[in-house]
Formats: sequence, C-alpha cells, structure tokens
Amino acid sequence: MAKKRVMSGMRATGQLHIGHYLGVLVNWLQMQDQYDCFFAVADWHMLTTGFAKTEGLRENTRQLVLDYLAAGVDPAKATIYVQSSILETAELHLILSMITPVNWLQRDPTLKEMVRELHLAEDHVSYGLLGYPALQTADILGPMGELVPVGEDQMAHIEISRDIARRFNHLFGVDLFPEPQGLLTPTPVVFGTDGRKMSKSYGNDLKLADDEKSINSKVMSMVTDPARLRKDDPGHPEVCMIYNGWETYASEKAPEIATLCRAGEIGCVQCKRNLAVQVNERLAPIQARRRELETDPGMLDDIVIAGNARARQATQETLAKVRDAMHLNQPYNRT
Amino acid sequence: MAKKRVMSGMRATGQLHIGHYLGVLVNWLQMQDQYDCFFAVADWHMLTTGFAKTEGLRENTRQLVLDYLAAGVDPAKATIYVQSSILETAELHLILSMITPVNWLQRDPTLKEMVRELHLAEDHVSYGLLGYPALQTADILGPMGELVPVGEDQMAHIEISRDIARRFNHLFGVDLFPEPQGLLTPTPVVFGTDGRKMSKSYGNDLKLADDEKSINSKVMSMVTDPARLRKDDPGHPEVCMIYNGWETYASEKAPEIATLCRAGEIGCVQCKRNLAVQVNERLAPIQARRRELETDPGMLDDIVIAGNARARQATQETLAKVRDAMHLNQPYNRT
Repeated sequence: MAKKRVMSGMRATGQLHIGHYLGVLVNWLQMQDQYDCFFAVADWHMLTTGFAKTEGLRENTRQLVLDYLAAGVDPAKATIYVQSSILETAELHLILSMITPVNWLQRDPTLKEMVRELHLAEDHVSYGLLGYPALQTADILGPMGELVPVGEDQMAHIEISRDIARRFNHLFGVDLFPEPQGLLTPTPVVFGTDGRKMSKSYGNDLKLADDEKSINSKVMSMVTDPARLRKDDPGHPEVCMIYNGWETYASEKAPEIATLCRAGEIGCVQCKRNLAVQVNERLAPIQARRRELETDPGMLDDIVIAGNARARQATQETLAKVRDAMHLNQPYNRT
Repeated sequence: MAKKRVMSGMRATGQLHIGHYLGVLVNWLQMQDQYDCFFAVADWHMLTTGFAKTEGLRENTRQLVLDYLAAGVDPAKATIYVQSSILETAELHLILSMITPVNWLQRDPTLKEMVRELHLAEDHVSYGLLGYPALQTADILGPMGELVPVGEDQMAHIEISRDIARRFNHLFGVDLFPEPQGLLTPTPVVFGTDGRKMSKSYGNDLKLADDEKSINSKVMSMVTDPARLRKDDPGHPEVCMIYNGWETYASEKAPEIATLCRAGEIGCVQCKRNLAVQVNERLAPIQARRRELETDPGMLDDIVIAGNARARQATQETLAKVRDAMHLNQPYNRT
C-alpha cells in the first residue's frame, strides 16, 4: 500500500530555535520514515505579516533549508522545497479563493489571534493575511497532502482546508481532493531564557545554530528559583527555568536534579553549567551536519532543485485535473 | 516615443451583445491604432461570481475571442490572450494580495453593488470576489499597463490599482510599476428589447452573432409608444424603444424618423422593419468575419497562442523584477 502523503512547512522568518526543533522537526524526523513527506519553506507565507521587511528573505530561506537538513530531515526520504518555486500553487490558491466563502476566513480564530498578538494596524491586515488558510490549503492540496501535522491550536486551519476540499469536490462533482486530516503531534511548550514561551520576537531563544559559547551564556542568564538566595538553601525546581530546561533537554536526568536541588546539594551556577553541557551535546550532531552542508553550497542547491522539481510536478498534475473538473482550458504555452 | 500600453479585458460569460460592442469594442478598435493594446479574455475573473456554473467556460472563452476578432480587433495591432494562460499573473496576484489592505477591498463600491445586484447569498461571496480589484490589478500590472479604458462607474477599481502600484513602489523603494490611469471612454447606455438596459441576464439582448432572422424577430418584439394605437396617430419618439434604436444604430437617420413619427406618417411595424435592416447591415461585416474565422479553427488557435506568448513574456519580465525588489529568490526550475 502506498504511503500516505504528509504536507507541512515553516515560514521563512529566520533561523530556527530549539522550540521549533522540539515542536516541529522532531516530529518530522519520525514522520519521514513512515509517510511520503513534503516539507516546504514557506516564503510566500512569510509575506502575510512580513511584507514590509523582506531584506532577509533570500537568506532566511537558505537558512531554513539548512535547519531542516541539519536537524536530520533526509532528502532521500522527504521532499524539501521552496513554496514560491511552485508557481502552480499560486494558481491553485487563486482558484480555491473563488470557492472559499470570505466569512469562513473571517471567522478563523488563528487570524484573530495573530492580528491581536502582532498589534497589527488596520492597514497592515492585508488581503493575503486574511487568505492565510486558503494559501495553506493550496500548499496542502497541490501535492495532494492527506495528513498535516498540527498542534491543537492549529486544528481550525485544517478544518478550513477540509471544508475547501469538500466544497471543491461537491461543486464540480468530482472526487479529486482528499480531505486532509490534522495529525496531532506533540508540541511541548518550550520556555525561553526569561521564563516566557521561547520566541524569536521575545529575544529569549536558543537557536539551533548557536555555538557553544552562545548557549553557555544564554543558559547562564536563565531565571532560577528567586527564593533561593544561598547555594545550600533548599530549591523549588517547579518554579526554576533551569529545572524546566532539564525536563526539556535531558528529561531522564531531571528526577536526580530535582532531588539534589530540593536538598540544597547543588548550586544554581553549577546546575546551569551542567545543563549547558547537555544542551550543547544535544545540538552537537545538528551543528556538525550544518557545518558539513555549509562547506558545499552546491549540494544544498541540488537538494532544493530536486525537491522543487518533485513538488512542482505533483502540483502540475493536480492543477491539470482541477482545470479539467472546472472546464477551464488547459492553457496554451505552459510548460 | 513608444506607444503607451493599454490593458483591458472582458469576462468570459458568453457571447457578446450589441451593448458590449458599442460600449467596449468600438473603443478598443480606436485604441488599437493609437496604443500598444493588451486585450484579455478574463476566464479566472468569471469565476468570482460564476464558480458554481462553469460548464460553458471553455466554449465561452473561444466565443469571446471570436467576438473580439469579428468586431475588428486586429491581432497584428493588439495582443489578444487568455487570462488564465498567464500563470505568472496568479503569482503577481498572490504577491499583491500581501500588500493590499483588506479594508481597501471591503470599501470598494463596485463589489457592494455586485453583491446587491446578483442577490448573492453570504456563502456565495467568496474570498476571490472580494479580491476582484487585486486580480484586476495583477492583470494590468503584469504587462505594465499604463492606461485602462473605463466607464465612469469603474473609476473606483482603477483607484485601487493605482494605490496598490504606489504602495508596492513605496514599500520596496523602487520605481517599478506605473500608476495605471483610467482612460474614460464613451459607454452609451444601450437598451434591450424590453426597454431595460441591454443585458444577457435580462434576456433582452441582441447578440453580435445573432443571424438576420433572430434580429428581425427581436426588433419586431421591441416596445413602441404605448399611446399610439393607430398607424396615423402622432407618435412620441422620446418614449419609443424603436426610436431609441435608430439613435443607437443609425443616428444619422434618427431626425428624419422622428419627424415622420410625430406626423403619423410612418407606422410602427414599418419603422421596426426598417430598423431591423439597419441593425443587420451594421452586423453584416462583423458576422462575415466571424464566419471566416469559424472555417479555420487553427487560425484562431494560432492567434491566441501568439497572444498568450507575448502577454506571458511581458508578465514574466515584470515578475522577475518584482521578485528582485522583494528579495524573493528567483525560483529554481521555472521556465
């Protein structure tokens, strides 16, 4: 039986941090063995909110491919590609936009949250941002994606994709599109150095590409139990970001750390140093792969070129069927 | 000095009627001598309201090209092409959608009117319909259109296109897009057989492709002065649709007809017969060209293929500059 097709992607907004790694990439690594995976670098999607600041877009796209590969996504197993290289996705988006009631999009809770969180001024809420779920649907349905890994908070988006797929099939009397399913994946909340959720925009993140020195200094700056003034005071791991770090990065060692901390038998500074070692160990193989890839930019290009070709062909095949179902001409002069 | 570029198009909703001819095509015929004209068959745009009924789309597209050519649009002077053959327009639309504030579109009076006139149910107002002016802007800016023929009621759309072009140039610090200007063209109101505005949806239209017999029977059915019961009663041309027809189709003869009518010296039946002759004479050369084109479908294809190629190349050149300005990658694997 053919493997089910998974489609996922991340927006090209900069280098990934450990939160992305644990929340997304670790899941991808498991999926690539089990499914036929399409993993996109979503550069068009970055424009939904980032259109006013695109200087870094080209480099961010490259960095994201590097992050995928360094984390262990294997181009022999999964298709890695750049969203905007698949011109047909833009047409599929345009066509799906015609059958997507605008009130489905206006009701989308994720959009409302985004507008609130980013404090977007009214004229910064673009037509394209409103259409975020429609473009995502084109991304998914272009290569006929059946499964989309999501956290619980993204289920609403996938619902819209299912509704659009169903409406297309119904309107044109075909059984063309699968109704993509959300594949609920573990997305642990990873905290940043200041105790808030790890996020590039808070400046509290540990990047996958951070070197040993940066990791050491970031871990040393993390917030510990504020009630613990002296080294041999008993600590409270449940309020300590370092302890949270142990649970996140080396959970097998966390119980032992908790015991030492509560007994006042390990100081915070030593505990931080030990944690930094753990984090650096965890990142070491990822960074080794990144260095290897950086020595051979041609190889990176080849991987993306091959991935783009595969994703584009799949989307072209879909689009030919879409045009057929809608009685649109198969265009002259296309390639 | 290079000719200014004109961009215009009509939606592929079926064969054109005389209202389209007098309101649009006659203007195009003048423009093709003066400007570098791009005339599109807007099949994607038809989907904004017609997505639920696309069976005729392919044939309607062909018929519209035939109407353009039969009316006298000359492929040696103007570029005739099918909108959806220019895949790059879909990407340009997607990119422009990211910088177009959604409230610019929500305020568009033409959209509001369309929703009202078509009695669209809420779930029939699609995301694509809301984006009508953004897609139109992509159509115009793709081949760097500078002038767009419009009636007064369409000036609001062109304003949006100007605003989007200006915003792009401003955001990315370039002087890339022209700010397209509306070229105010005469758009006489043409009445249908029942005295309402000529419209396919009212079923009161005289089609460019109607044969002599159809024209005769449609003209004979037209509403005359209801107060005139006998042939030698004095008539009131100002309330008579036949007289309106004289003004529309053979205005040089209208004063003489008015005199005869007011004096009760010509009967309505005779007056209708005479008008039908005028209409048929006016349509004869158009229909002769249409018959000629229909005998050689290969020629029609060749014209569209050449037009598509020219429009596509222009749009590809634009898109390469757009991507450059926005720091998007020039995509791998494109052709």
